[in-house]
Amino acid sequence: MKLKIKRLSFTAGDPFIAVLNKKDAYHLDLYPGDRIKIKYKSKEIIAVVNLAFKNVNQGEIGIFEHIINFFNVTHGYVDVSLSEKLKSTNYIKKKLEGNILNAREINEIVKDIMSNNLSEIELTYFVSACYGNGLNNNEVIALTKAIVNNGNKLNLNKHPILDLHSIGGIPGNRITIIAVPIIAAAGFIIPKTSSRSITSPSGTSDTMEVIANVSFPVNDIKKIVNKTNGCMVWGGAVNLAAADDKLIRVRNPLGLDPEGMLLASIIAKKAAVNATHVLIEIPVGKNSKVENKQKAVRLKNKFIQLGKKFNIKIIIMFSDGNQPVGNGIGPGLEARDVLKVLQGTGPEDLREKGLKTAAMLLKLLNVKDAYTKATEILDSGLAYEKFREIVKAQKGDPNIKIEDIKIGPFSYDVKSKYNGTIAKIDNNIISRIARVAGAPNDKEAGIYLNYHINDYVKKNDILFTIYAKNQKKLRYSLNVLKLNNPIMIR
Amino acid sequence: MKLKIKRLSFTAGDPFIAVLNKKDAYHLDLYPGDRIKIKYKSKEIIAVVNLAFKNVNQGEIGIFEHIINFFNVTHGYVDVSLSEKLKSTNYIKKKLEGNILNAREINEIVKDIMSNNLSEIELTYFVSACYGNGLNNNEVIALTKAIVNNGNKLNLNKHPILDLHSIGGIPGNRITIIAVPIIAAAGFIIPKTSSRSITSPSGTSDTMEVIANVSFPVNDIKKIVNKTNGCMVWGGAVNLAAADDKLIRVRNPLGLDPEGMLLASIIAKKAAVNATHVLIEIPVGKNSKVENKQKAVRLKNKFIQLGKKFNIKIIIMFSDGNQPVGNGIGPGLEARDVLKVLQGTGPEDLREKGLKTAAMLLKLLNVKDAYTKATEILDSGLAYEKFREIVKAQKGDPNIKIEDIKIGPFSYDVKSKYNGTIAKIDNNIISRIARVAGAPNDKEAGIYLNYHINDYVKKNDILFTIYAKNQKKLRYSLNVLKLNNPIMIR
Repeated sequence: MKLKIKRLSFTAGDPFIAVLNKKDAYHLDLYPGDRIKIKYKSKEIIAVVNLAFKNVNQGEIGIFEHIINFFNVTHGYVDVSLSEKLKSTNYIKKKLEGNILNAREINEIVKDIMSNNLSEIELTYFVSACYGNGLNNNEVIALTKAIVNNGNKLNLNKHPILDLHSIGGIPGNRITIIAVPIIAAAGFIIPKTSSRSITSPSGTSDTMEVIANVSFPVNDIKKIVNKTNGCMVWGGAVNLAAADDKLIRVRNPLGLDPEGMLLASIIAKKAAVNATHVLIEIPVGKNSKVENKQKAVRLKNKFIQLGKKFNIKIIIMFSDGNQPVGNGIGPGLEARDVLKVLQGTGPEDLREKGLKTAAMLLKLLNVKDAYTKATEILDSGLAYEKFREIVKAQKGDPNIKIEDIKIGPFSYDVKSKYNGTIAKIDNNIISRIARVAGAPNDKEAGIYLNYHINDYVKKNDILFTIYAKNQKKLRYSLNVLKLNNPIMIR
Repeated sequence: MKLKIKRLSFTAGDPFIAVLNKKDAYHLDLYPGDRIKIKYKSKEIIAVVNLAFKNVNQGEIGIFEHIINFFNVTHGYVDVSLSEKLKSTNYIKKKLEGNILNAREINEIVKDIMSNNLSEIELTYFVSACYGNGLNNNEVIALTKAIVNNGNKLNLNKHPILDLHSIGGIPGNRITIIAVPIIAAAGFIIPKTSSRSITSPSGTSDTMEVIANVSFPVNDIKKIVNKTNGCMVWGGAVNLAAADDKLIRVRNPLGLDPEGMLLASIIAKKAAVNATHVLIEIPVGKNSKVENKQKAVRLKNKFIQLGKKFNIKIIIMFSDGNQPVGNGIGPGLEARDVLKVLQGTGPEDLREKGLKTAAMLLKLLNVKDAYTKATEILDSGLAYEKFREIVKAQKGDPNIKIEDIKIGPFSYDVKSKYNGTIAKIDNNIISRIARVAGAPNDKEAGIYLNYHINDYVKKNDILFTIYAKNQKKLRYSLNVLKLNNPIMIR
């Protein structure tokens, strides 16, 4: 059936969605959720059907930006036909019923996820199936392989290749930007790809972007690493092992993070850069993904086991997930913090954690006195020099100064109402205030936190300062503050 | 935040959806899937946030027919604020994790389903949780109670009250329209509410609607039953125990029908009319919901057990789910079949099954020689007389004649290519052909099936005739036929 393109533009959706007039759908015996094949010239995609009553007339097909971009067409006619039932939906059902899937079946599901062939509802069933019944070891291995094979790879032809990953968003936790220059300065290869923030005030990529570019094609990343031993780029730009990213939208509503998927997703991202030695940080704490030590140890063992299957040697770093790291929260403020640490000052906790991270990775490579070595590299300025090399290779200004990084200009000081000791800092509320103030999109927005847990404060001491780009956003953030208290003093 | 209404009209969606401009959402720190409270005058609903890039400007809120109708407003301003997290989403997560829910928790979920508070993704997680981990007996009882308590009820103040239900769509299976008049003519109360077709060529309500009205408010249904002992109306119009209906959209993509939900949904619908004696038909066969006798017997026992908790005496009728019942498939053709049976002719298999259904229900009430009694009522014309009474009460024409029921006018005879015995009839393909020909929306469309399994046919005998309202739909149905063979001859 030929249908005329009608351009719609209101949801950003991963699975391709096509909106048909009720009458056309009826003639084709199509129901919401059914699949159609849409052809334009030599290109073809599978889309999920939604129904329209008014906006899309008979003879028209409503399509969104995604499909518009894929076909690179904004008007004219496309050819629409019924699509066969996807095999992968049967496998999802099979898994939901408590059965075990084989590697071929898992690969089929991942292939369809990567091709945007599955609807939100089907993706949700897949997440449920992995969550409820769990995945056994072989399934996790198969899922990891499938994610690697259905995404891009970074082939550097080097050995060893180091990498690191932190689970879960502790605000201010920018250890990567400290550890990567140390490792690279020590002469090891570390092609680090990071994420952008989804629900936190800043991701490593958001912070790094204050100082340098982070979006590069695979070939440019290779050049950067070949030149400097390392990189700190945005993984999303290169689609490395990205299947997991497609599931975020359906996982968010219940905040589900099925363990098997978490394992597969992280190891796949490391296998996609051919990493051989990997540090994984597991923050443990009440507001973290991993609430207690017992769970953390179980996860540790699973990571190490899975890593072996991909010839990756893994070391786990447990850390305190109960409060932010460093003082700055938000891209600009965090960039200032890491720059200070690299220059020899900066927040002590961030410096210590960065050093520990680098040292553990070096130790994994049998470097002797790894902590002392890492400290020397940092204190001698070698790490800062390496950082400037990487920044230059990533088209940033290697001579950037702390005061070049803009903050504010609007700010508000939150003062202590009592004398006492800080008993608790709520990561979620801190994140929310920083986000509503504008982070991460406004690089200059965020929070500067003056104290950590166990610090003593007096009445009227400034607990933290909120920064925003304009008055309005500052006001929004104060509304959040009015309803939520992020810091408990005892 | 005050936002200006922008009327959107392109998806029919159960959970309320509001489309915000990306920038407004950003200021409110809202993500797709988050919930907002929308207030207009004294009315308030919870909606799920989608994001817009173009159609909805800053300061506007895009809302659909559903919300437009609820507020009864098409322009002006509504007040939008953040909604707290729903407790029910925590319970869904809890269930997904394999825990058992208590009655209060299950009631909270059902309440939110009925209030359209849950997003599609969340509904999907709930179905998964019930499917994957299953519901134990107490949970099924709690779910049944919750469904009854969160829907409308039909209080007739009579005893006993009879009812019947068939699981799963066997095409042409219109036993209700034969059994209800027999039961009512025998002096028993049977307030039968039926569904419309979702994916079959006709539901009992679609067929009955050819002859009489089927949509009545609860009070009118009471009057009809008080006058005639029975009714055959559309349950969807009165929202009796309707929680299950809200889940259909998320169950369809994988065709999931979690057993606990099936049990709860059916018994709740019976409890909502205060039924005391209920017959449940379980068709067993390869293309049915219940594939084998073993599963059927297990389900039978569960129905009987659950019925006891609601003081409902249940009898189960197993039937052959391998082929259509009667000859007509589609509203008009089925209406002709049942009218013929009531008038003393018609397809023998439909007559027999209708009689058996009525007899089993009468037997459950200790009526002696129930089958003979049912046959007498049918053959004497008493059932037909009762049917005409009900039709009249439901604003239909009691004097309607077979030839008054329009069929076609376009038709196509499908002939046998061989001499042989009919070995298999595929319910799904038959349904699809009838639907593409126009059923159930075109009452005059469908299939007239001349043979059943084990019948002998000669080459060029007419196996079945397809009827459609226009040439185009007939052609569509022939395309389906070209790709699929519904009848296997050996």
